[in-house]
Amino acid sequence: MKAGLIYGKKDLRIESVPVPEVTKGKAKIEIAYAGICGSDLHIYHDGAMLEEEHPLSKKKPPIILGHEFSGTVVEIGKGVTNVSPGDKVTVEPFIYCGTCEYCKKGNYNFCEFFGSLGVNDDGGFAEYCVTDARYLHKLPENMSLKEGALVEPVAVAVHAVRQSGLKVGESVAIFGAGPIGLLTLLAAKATGATKTFVVDISQERLNKAKELGAGYIIHPMNEDAVQKIVSITGNGVDIAFEAAGVSETFTNAITSIKPGGTVSVIAIYESMVPFDPNILFEKEGKIFFSRGYANEYQEVIELIAHQFIDAKQIITKEINLNNLVEDGLEFLVKDKSQSKILVRPN
Amino acid sequence: MKAGLIYGKKDLRIESVPVPEVTKGKAKIEIAYAGICGSDLHIYHDGAMLEEEHPLSKKKPPIILGHEFSGTVVEIGKGVTNVSPGDKVTVEPFIYCGTCEYCKKGNYNFCEFFGSLGVNDDGGFAEYCVTDARYLHKLPENMSLKEGALVEPVAVAVHAVRQSGLKVGESVAIFGAGPIGLLTLLAAKATGATKTFVVDISQERLNKAKELGAGYIIHPMNEDAVQKIVSITGNGVDIAFEAAGVSETFTNAITSIKPGGTVSVIAIYESMVPFDPNILFEKEGKIFFSRGYANEYQEVIELIAHQFIDAKQIITKEINLNNLVEDGLEFLVKDKSQSKILVRPN
Ligand SMILES: [Zn+2]
Ligand SMILES: [Zn+2]
Ligand SMILES: [Zn+2]
Ligand SMILES: [Zn+2]
Repeated sequence: MKAGLIYGKKDLRIESVPVPEVTKGKAKIEIAYAGICGSDLHIYHDGAMLEEEHPLSKKKPPIILGHEFSGTVVEIGKGVTNVSPGDKVTVEPFIYCGTCEYCKKGNYNFCEFFGSLGVNDDGGFAEYCVTDARYLHKLPENMSLKEGALVEPVAVAVHAVRQSGLKVGESVAIFGAGPIGLLTLLAAKATGATKTFVVDISQERLNKAKELGAGYIIHPMNEDAVQKIVSITGNGVDIAFEAAGVSETFTNAITSIKPGGTVSVIAIYESMVPFDPNILFEKEGKIFFSRGYANEYQEVIELIAHQFIDAKQIITKEINLNNLVEDGLEFLVKDKSQSKILVRPN
Repeated sequence: MKAGLIYGKKDLRIESVPVPEVTKGKAKIEIAYAGICGSDLHIYHDGAMLEEEHPLSKKKPPIILGHEFSGTVVEIGKGVTNVSPGDKVTVEPFIYCGTCEYCKKGNYNFCEFFGSLGVNDDGGFAEYCVTDARYLHKLPENMSLKEGALVEPVAVAVHAVRQSGLKVGESVAIFGAGPIGLLTLLAAKATGATKTFVVDISQERLNKAKELGAGYIIHPMNEDAVQKIVSITGNGVDIAFEAAGVSETFTNAITSIKPGGTVSVIAIYESMVPFDPNILFEKEGKIFFSRGYANEYQEVIELIAHQFIDAKQIITKEINLNNLVEDGLEFLVKDKSQSKILVRPN
């Protein structure tokens, strides 16, 4: 089969590789769509997360990239009961042990042996994927395979919003209007956030946020983001989501919440942040860090299927796997009007 | 009456001032004991919090210092029903408007017009205090006036522990073994914390923590605090309390919690902190900032009266108001074996 394998920094190759055998407990899916994620860019452009053999998958690079994907089951191994050939499915890509303290408590998103398909085992930029059937979730009739490829990033956003404690009628500010920021906006609106602010340094991304229903879009080079948020809300937002991962947005996020408010961090940072804890002490603020999701895929599928979250709005382009590098991994960093690009294997 | 007035940095004067009149809604108490707090040291040694007239009290320095005090009611004004002459009481020193968004929700600890007796209005280092009767809480029969003077700092510790979400059977690390750190230890033990670690750079303070029942005391210059905590717990503590307010302890606190754990910050910082958010992202940590207390005095009084928290153990010295500077404000920064010093007006 054709697949996009990551060998190292800036080294992704489209190659022909054998389709793995379907053994006990596994299923083979014919992949329909796989989304390109910010972490794929980080792996490709910076060579991140590519060092070691994973203790559970026993695999190391070259690995098939891509962890946001959907497809149709074409074969199942012995003992598989949750899916059958012909089922449309989405893949929950997290690899976890199932037996550590965190897995036992349901928090497999911080399993001691945490990993992910497309990072620590073969992923979705390929014609087929053979994986543990327990990672597969059936899509309802009224949900498309394109939407199926978006369940993963929507789950990231939904987890952050749920964990933040956001309540119906409250206000939110979202720093960073990449795909996760935009999906967080949709998840916050689905939760009943009334006043919503989106802050980004790209006017194109802000326009997209406006299209998706942001109440206010703010370009921090044109106006003072915190001042605008505070002047419109009176005293700051209930929840600020930090989805950009830089010093300035972290500081703006902690400054823009009201007394008693919460900052939810959904980003990985490139460097240390100079932090003034007194800003949060003064107003008795909270910071929650949100990593992935756990036990939330079914609920996210329902949120999308029943149109509480119209995730497909963030799709800006579809490309062929053959052109993953030029039209995807390289193109996304050049064209800021892009949000989610879906990759078709053929 | 005799009183200790703060005029400015390093300028506290014991003077004779008139006893204020008892007007409607007010009560006069004859002060028994007033504790010296870290924030009193900060005001005296650094001239902190002394700048402006407070919008509610309309007072500015010179002001009678001291916000942790108890006494006996000697006179009440019209309309006062919650206390009567002869009652032993403790004073809840927070000044708040009662009508802003936060006060209405019960969070008067971050009232828009927040202030405190002993900082923004006359406090407890004096023979008498005339204040709003609503600030007074009666002490039960079995509680001494010395214990009454400790309700304030115990409330700070109890608020932090309650807000941290600490559950019976969990583990805690406390960074900083000053009075608030020690009381946090007692509050955590009252909550059922099994494994408890106290970290401080003063061996004398650590010895005091051990006396109070700390499971492990750690001097970070003798051994690696985080490494010891992780090796004994297996993977870190459930809750780390940061009661020191410096960069190193902040970093140690975020590093010593287990995945899914919480850091509770109870300190004010002298400077910015270099912060690596990825440490908390990786393990989906949380940071709660804890400021004062609200609607918790009655519960704290019961915790002390029924010996769930034996607060009087932190008292290391009693001094006369005449010697507040030499034996109190100056002495506390020299002698690290001191914890809580109580001031008697006569
Ligand atoms: Zn992703
Ligand atoms: Zn696990
Ligand atoms: Zn105090
Ligand atoms: Zn208020």
